[in-house]
Amino acid sequence: MPQPIFNQVVEYNTEGLDRVFAAVADPTRRAILAALAQEPATVTEIARPFPVSLNAISKHILVLERAGLVKREVVGREHRCRLDPAPLRKASAWLEYYRKFWDLRLDALERHVISRKKGKRGTHGRSD
Amino acid sequence: MPQPIFNQVVEYNTEGLDRVFAAVADPTRRAILAALAQEPATVTEIARPFPVSLNAISKHILVLERAGLVKREVVGREHRCRLDPAPLRKASAWLEYYRKFWDLRLDALERHVISRKKGKRGTHGRSD
Repeated sequence: MPQPIFNQVVEYNTEGLDRVFAAVADPTRRAILAALAQEPATVTEIARPFPVSLNAISKHILVLERAGLVKREVVGREHRCRLDPAPLRKASAWLEYYRKFWDLRLDALERHVISRKKGKRGTHGRSD
Repeated sequence: MPQPIFNQVVEYNTEGLDRVFAAVADPTRRAILAALAQEPATVTEIARPFPVSLNAISKHILVLERAGLVKREVVGREHRCRLDPAPLRKASAWLEYYRKFWDLRLDALERHVISRKKGKRGTHGRSD
């Protein structure tokens, strides 16, 4: 099978993408990002709505930090976290390559529905 | 902190997204998807360019299958795999929510660059 884009895709920022995708593969971490998208918060504030320990949330935040998705600022005794969306942009760019495939699938589905509708109309008018 | 979109984001197709993001968090699996985007292939054909065992590739394909990204058809004694891009569309839709944040960042950067340029021009013309 031909694989001209193979190495290109593999080598394109591969470690960064690994970390970003692994980071957002967890619902708690996605929820933390959604919360930080509203406003920056301390670790304690982030942890409040979750039914898990502060320690567990801290670990999730660390995974997000390592992926570059969360930046932490130490202001006095407070650790303030904010969203950094830049790595998500790279993830989106990777996915963008596949857009043509799902667009194609939707096009094919649309054509199928239209041809079925036409077929039905044809059947009503004729005896075959 | 206000979290109106919290549960909405957490509950939106959470298991599906977990599996898709975890599946594409690996460079070998991303390379397999890139190969299948070119044309369907048997497991042996997929494994050929990789410096790892057929067994390792089989496991990667299984992860992709569980995420719904690869469909397998058994034709005679052959297992033919093809890309199913539909779950990537859902991943892209999740990322889409964050587009406004990276767009904002780029806008801010652009404004910063423009205002610096203007500042420089101003300095050339005047003595302040």
